Amino acid sequence: MSFTQRLRQVQMQQNSLLCIGLDVDVNKIPAHLKDTENSVVEFNRQIIEATHDLVCAYKPNLAFYEALGERGMTVLRETLKRIPKSVLTIGDGKRSDIGNTSEYYAKVLFNEFSFDSTTVNPYMGFDSVEPFLSDPEKGVFILALTSNPGSKDFQRLKVGTKPLFEKVVQTVKKWDKKRNIGLVVGATHPKELQHIRTMVPSMPILIPGVGKQGGGLKSAVRSGCDKHGQLAVINASRSILYASSGKDFAEAARTEAKKMRDEMRMFLG
Amino acid sequence: MSFTQRLRQVQMQQNSLLCIGLDVDVNKIPAHLKDTENSVVEFNRQIIEATHDLVCAYKPNLAFYEALGERGMTVLRETLKRIPKSVLTIGDGKRSDIGNTSEYYAKVLFNEFSFDSTTVNPYMGFDSVEPFLSDPEKGVFILALTSNPGSKDFQRLKVGTKPLFEKVVQTVKKWDKKRNIGLVVGATHPKELQHIRTMVPSMPILIPGVGKQGGGLKSAVRSGCDKHGQLAVINASRSILYASSGKDFAEAARTEAKKMRDEMRMFLG
Repeated sequence: MSFTQRLRQVQMQQNSLLCIGLDVDVNKIPAHLKDTENSVVEFNRQIIEATHDLVCAYKPNLAFYEALGERGMTVLRETLKRIPKSVLTIGDGKRSDIGNTSEYYAKVLFNEFSFDSTTVNPYMGFDSVEPFLSDPEKGVFILALTSNPGSKDFQRLKVGTKPLFEKVVQTVKKWDKKRNIGLVVGATHPKELQHIRTMVPSMPILIPGVGKQGGGLKSAVRSGCDKHGQLAVINASRSILYASSGKDFAEAARTEAKKMRDEMRMFLG
Repeated sequence: MSFTQRLRQVQMQQNSLLCIGLDVDVNKIPAHLKDTENSVVEFNRQIIEATHDLVCAYKPNLAFYEALGERGMTVLRETLKRIPKSVLTIGDGKRSDIGNTSEYYAKVLFNEFSFDSTTVNPYMGFDSVEPFLSDPEKGVFILALTSNPGSKDFQRLKVGTKPLFEKVVQTVKKWDKKRNIGLVVGATHPKELQHIRTMVPSMPILIPGVGKQGGGLKSAVRSGCDKHGQLAVINASRSILYASSGKDFAEAARTEAKKMRDEMRMFLG
């Protein structure tokens, strides 16, 4: 089964487009957890336990685990063990290198950590992305138009009459022989998201930038989904993880996640 | 002192433009080392001991250390301890993310591992690069025109009348307020390297792609250096590390590194 089919299946079973970004900053963890030896694992465990029926995916950003030093990779591994098989995982590393080196990154993400998918930066071109594509079940979300202000610096430059990010979309569509490529498009660009969806009617789109980054949920849902109301993977991190800084953080995260999931359903109609 | 000044000083003192890429594949390590507990650290230690007077920098590519699993970060840290202060280090990770996240990557590379510099992918624009730039002593080599075949897919697309990589060069030149930005330009593109050097007469250029990847050393030296015969950092990895697969691997690495360093001097005239 291709990654795109797997995503459809999970989104149908979970009845959710929501992805929670497990971007845990050790300084933002509730005070009562800070004394436990594995405070980050414990924090993640409780978040996952409280929210796993509300999401289609969890997305740990690797930077936050690297920042934990030597034990970061163990914390990540322990976190991944807590995620039920009914939900997909996205290893958000935005890696890419020459082909020989990208192979090592792909092995780490897909074989060592068993992520279901990852994010990849397209700047270095096909041979930098190819090693991530070999297993059709494993997904690759390629950066197209990112949610941050810097997306205007290069991604919006005109190549002929079209912006670079459209050229990226057109090109990676041709690479998608195994139906395991998706795109990353920020919710902060609603008009462009809508246009990109018309360009790739049946490709997964990972949509960060709702919540703290200011992107609207309604347009993310309506412009990001395919005609079956699927394949948009809408990510929220800080607004859910840090919904409360008290002992009720997991409950508060559930309330916030449920609210977002229900809003998404409502916008789908 | 800015990173660019530091590089000038090191290249003068070491009288070398050579950088060795410490991209150690555990499967390519000589058989007699494979039984030692820390075979990769031991391999690197012997390579560094045999070559440190011949180089201006060492460049571990992070993918190869991540591929070692949980102990990878310890191996990297132990390797870095063996590098004398007289030589610069480049943490080759090609990271970049939204500003908030790039900050974590920058902290890991510059504070945790104390790398002198790193490589960064420009696709996500200024706020993704900015966190790496805050300390003028720490260098940031931004990918412009990479050595791999995929560099043609996006980097060479025409933006107006110029290729995208030139637009990247023009733009990052404006970001270089602290004199700590450099570029990555593959030796596999000699004509473009020459042109880029005219665009940035006094910016460091990290030049991979000589040796196994087929780029010429002569053009890398002549086109990559500034008018003082400096600021080109010419990287070789596999051709030096695996010059011999026997017990004489370190000696063979020294012979190969010395040959390259001497050839570079000769091409400088």
